[in-house]
Order: sequence, then structure tokens, then C-alpha cells
Amino acid sequence: MSRAAVVAGYTGYIGYVPERLLAGKKVIATGMTGEVARCESAVESALAGCDTAVVSSGDAGVYGMAGLVLEILEKRGLLERIEFEVVPGIPALCAAAALLGAPLTHDFAVVSLSDLLTPWETIAARIQAAASADFVLALYNPRSKRRSGQLALALAIVRRVRGETVPVGLVRQAYRAGQETRVCPLGAFDPESVDMLSIVVVGNSMTRIAGGRMLTPRGYAEKYDL
Amino acid sequence: MSRAAVVAGYTGYIGYVPERLLAGKKVIATGMTGEVARCESAVESALAGCDTAVVSSGDAGVYGMAGLVLEILEKRGLLERIEFEVVPGIPALCAAAALLGAPLTHDFAVVSLSDLLTPWETIAARIQAAASADFVLALYNPRSKRRSGQLALALAIVRRVRGETVPVGLVRQAYRAGQETRVCPLGAFDPESVDMLSIVVVGNSMTRIAGGRMLTPRGYAEKYDL
Repeated sequence: MSRAAVVAGYTGYIGYVPERLLAGKKVIATGMTGEVARCESAVESALAGCDTAVVSSGDAGVYGMAGLVLEILEKRGLLERIEFEVVPGIPALCAAAALLGAPLTHDFAVVSLSDLLTPWETIAARIQAAASADFVLALYNPRSKRRSGQLALALAIVRRVRGETVPVGLVRQAYRAGQETRVCPLGAFDPESVDMLSIVVVGNSMTRIAGGRMLTPRGYAEKYDL
Repeated sequence: MSRAAVVAGYTGYIGYVPERLLAGKKVIATGMTGEVARCESAVESALAGCDTAVVSSGDAGVYGMAGLVLEILEKRGLLERIEFEVVPGIPALCAAAALLGAPLTHDFAVVSLSDLLTPWETIAARIQAAASADFVLALYNPRSKRRSGQLALALAIVRRVRGETVPVGLVRQAYRAGQETRVCPLGAFDPESVDMLSIVVVGNSMTRIAGGRMLTPRGYAEKYDL
């Protein structure tokens, strides 16, 4: 990104880019639901000959802008004509997991609860499948003002499979000002306390709470008599 | 890690740590299946008063050593007595996804095919569930010399649900010397070409191949008439 002349991103995330990386650059910032216009502007900028970086929070490939930029390039027949690269980052689920302890040490499934682009029936079916197959679950976009009910519905699906005692972890604003971390059994978890800046992690049948952290053992203890 | 006096890690991964970060430090390196001894040595070292870092490749929380260290601390009643922190990193699945294009732009499931610590029946059930619920699948530890058959079995499960045309991506040695990337339909994918330094990503029903890359659309095109 240091080499780019233009930086495009969601207004809220542009604020997280260190100032030295923005100095002297043109910034294309748009608000929520401005994703398509923003990425199209970025493609226009690249077509005009400017090295252009599109920034996402976390990893650009996990519910980030990598896919949308690729779609726009494909639609315009530019995939083979413009040089572009997806740069990996630390996804929010790994940042959250590190703060919670070690909840992702075994197989896990990642589901966004946002039904803006995906029907709720598809989301619910994925949560049911992941819970039934004993995946750890990482839930993105768990709750917003307009989408206030999905998290409770999702956790109700999990509860029918794993009961009230399965550990749940919440991380809000991971590694940012206002960071909050909470770990408790599902029965004591209040979905109303969650907002869209949060990631919720639900354990599998082996996950336990240890010293206030979530721990999903990989199986070393059984095999090697730890 | 720069502050640590002792660094513990798998021999193969210690080689990836920049030399300046190892200068003047004691290194505890053990081979494959030496995980428990290595992490116990690291805990002993911390108990003896040395700041100690345990390194994993990718993210330490995703099939890495974060869980095992936590288990050892718990077993020894040290969770509240030793200060420790899990540091997040870029997991191999995000590194692989970036090189493949944007395969993880929608809900995905992560499964390790290693049956050293997990029964194959559990692994197969997870792949079946994830494929049926239309998750993108990221497969860790897809194949080794001793475990040569699991990947073909896993892909056979996927094939029954998604057919021969679902895109499959392979990344070997992501961002390291010897990096290889391949994208093709499942029907043309040869499991025999995969080794344990690889990650395999299987698309969901929406994933397509675009300009030689894997693209899982999030749904913007339908909603906004891209």
C-alpha cells in the first residue's frame, strides 16, 4: 500500500490506516453500502494509470472487498488486462480467537449473520449443519441496530444441539480502542449485549472455559497423556 | 517475540524466523510429533523466569500451538500464575486464499484431514455437513506420505454433493520459496499432486473460475446489478 497513489476504503476503516501511509495520497472513502461505488471508483482509478489500493478491515478475502473488486474486473473484462494482487491480513476471527484464548484449535466454520445479501434460511441451515457436525463457530456481523434478532435465532439453533453449557466468547473492537472480551456458557450469554463491531465464537463439544479463556483441545492430552 | 529470551518451535518453522529475531536467544527446536515436549519445555523455561515465545507457522490459534500451551498451563494450574498472550497472525488459509483470488468471500469451513488426533469418521462427517450446507471448504494437512488416501476420500464426498465442475484451488508453500498455485474444476484435480505443505480450497455452489482465479461472489452483483 505504501506504493499506491490512491487508497479506497470504507470511511470507518480509512481512519485506522496509519497517517504516514495516507500522506500525499488521494483517498476514496465511502460509507456503509457504498461498497460497489467505492470499488468501481478504485478500478477507474487503476484504469487511469494510478496504483490503487483498496483496504478492508481484517483480511480482505474474508467478507472483505477482494471478491467485489475481482467481480468488477471480471464484469469489465479487465482480469487479464490489469495487474492486481490480493494481500492477506489477520482476519477478525483470528484476532478475536487470540484474545479469547485458543477456541479455533480444531475444525471451525465461519458464518456471517448479515442477511442483506444472503437469505436467512441459508444462514440458518449453515449454522444447523456446523453445529450438528461439531464445528467451532465464528459468527461475523452478529447484530446491528437494523438486524437485531438474528443472533438470538442463531444461538437458539446452537442451543438445541449443544445445550446451555457450551462456551461462548465475544470480542468487540479487537486490538482497537474500546476492546472488550467476554467468555461465558451459552446459557449466561446475552445477545442484546452484542453489536456489529463484535465477533462471537461458539465452542464445539470439547471446548471448555479455562482461567476465563476458551480452549478447544486438539486431542494431545488424550493421545499423549498430558 | 523480539523481547523473548527463549524461542520454541518446530525445527522446520524456526528456519523461517528472521535471524535478527533469534540473535542471542536460546532456541528450543523439536521435530514433528515433538509438540508436547516442545511446549512443556517452553512452559518450564517461562517458569524459570525467562520470557519465552512459542512460534507456529501461520496463525498460532489455527491448528497451531496456542491450544496446547494453554492445555499445559491449565493441567499444571498455571493459568492464573503465568502471564501469557496469544499473538494472532495470518493463517495459511488466508495466505492461500489471497493467492487463489477471492474464494473465501462467503461462509467457509476449515477442516484438517489429519487423523492422527481425530477419527476419520468425524472428519468425513464434517466434510459432508459443510458440503451439504454449501460452505466453501479449506482443507489443512491434506496429504502426507503416511496419510496418502484421505484427500481423495474427502473430495469424493464433495463430488457427490457439488459434481465435477466445482472449482478447486491448491496452494503449496504460500509466500515461501517453491510457491505453487493451481486452480481447476474438481474433475480435473489430481489429489496425488498434493503434499503436506499445501492447502486445498474447494468452492461452494456459487464459486467460479475467473481469469485463472477462484471467485466466490458475496451477492453484490445480484443486489446492485453490477
